[in-house]
Amino acid sequence: MKAAGKALKQSVPEGRKPLGRVEVRLSGSGGQGLILAGLVLAEAAGLYDGREVAMVQSYGPEARGGASKAEVIIRDGSIDYPLCTRVDLLLALNQEAADEYSHDLAPGAWVIVDGDLVANAPTSRAVALPFTAAARDKLKRPMVANVIALGAVSALTGIVSLKALEKALLAHVPAGTEALNKKALALGVKLGREALGKVRPGQVWEFSAADM
Amino acid sequence: MKAAGKALKQSVPEGRKPLGRVEVRLSGSGGQGLILAGLVLAEAAGLYDGREVAMVQSYGPEARGGASKAEVIIRDGSIDYPLCTRVDLLLALNQEAADEYSHDLAPGAWVIVDGDLVANAPTSRAVALPFTAAARDKLKRPMVANVIALGAVSALTGIVSLKALEKALLAHVPAGTEALNKKALALGVKLGREALGKVRPGQVWEFSAADM
Repeated sequence: MKAAGKALKQSVPEGRKPLGRVEVRLSGSGGQGLILAGLVLAEAAGLYDGREVAMVQSYGPEARGGASKAEVIIRDGSIDYPLCTRVDLLLALNQEAADEYSHDLAPGAWVIVDGDLVANAPTSRAVALPFTAAARDKLKRPMVANVIALGAVSALTGIVSLKALEKALLAHVPAGTEALNKKALALGVKLGREALGKVRPGQVWEFSAADM
Repeated sequence: MKAAGKALKQSVPEGRKPLGRVEVRLSGSGGQGLILAGLVLAEAAGLYDGREVAMVQSYGPEARGGASKAEVIIRDGSIDYPLCTRVDLLLALNQEAADEYSHDLAPGAWVIVDGDLVANAPTSRAVALPFTAAARDKLKRPMVANVIALGAVSALTGIVSLKALEKALLAHVPAGTEALNKKALALGVKLGREALGKVRPGQVWEFSAADM
């Protein structure tokens, strides 16, 4: 895959700082659509933002309940190892996932949780947002909490562009739900931007090209 | 994940021989739909056949051309390591993929190739079938070669049930293409069954519970 990696590095748009290896873990219960969220994030970053992406997900009885996860590695340049070793961004949509999947966070990692469903965040720096409540109360569709969360991830961290996210999302949602999903994404961006204003300087971890 | 693994093991239907770890690699060029094929296989085995499944796929510039792959690990029981270490089933839809991804085959592995696009199969035991030609000539849709290949994989190896494959497939294809995709799957099963009759005894490697 060296050739592919090289080609990619050369294709980083002028003026764009190359992105070092970033490990993302999206977690929650089986019914919360984390695998779909992972697919959308991976395709957005890989096919539309033009980065190298590797994704790992599991299916099985545990995917229907309990703690479930999808992991996405994103980098400008080839990815040698497709598994998480030090998580840079953890999204946790329930308490069980927050507890189970926070053992290998990088120092200063982004931790983004559903504030109503995660009473005890894994770190005091966690950004807590009401993804599920917003989906239920503002859009009347609890199942788009995952899409709202993706929008917030984009707005907070910049790890994926909103444009790419929207393209990838629309390629994956059932026909007839495009408008709902675009609204959910925009709502997530709004929540993320508001939260960004409240994050204290020094708390925000920026993705860097340090490990390139 | 021990609890989940345990639960699964207990849920193996009576009379079904537990399946040991099976490593599947689906490969070809970026345009041949191998990631979709991997998703369908993983969901079929994980959600509908009730096994544990882990899947790894890559996105990026190389996913649009050259050699691209999706890897799926299937097992009755928990999966400790989600990457391929010794491939039990290689599907290769072009020569580059057959060359690039055949270095770590298990002894007696299934190797299934597109006979028209892979002139030099990685082993003399390879089963060569005309997936792309069948898609083009019989269904007038070259892009369903991946679905035909999945049908053949099911019929030849039994690693996934046809019923599960069809359910997972229909959940992933665009509205309006269900009939086409069902036809493609059935065509693959037919090709696979015919080939099975010609495979010499001793050449067929059966998935076993040896490593449980």
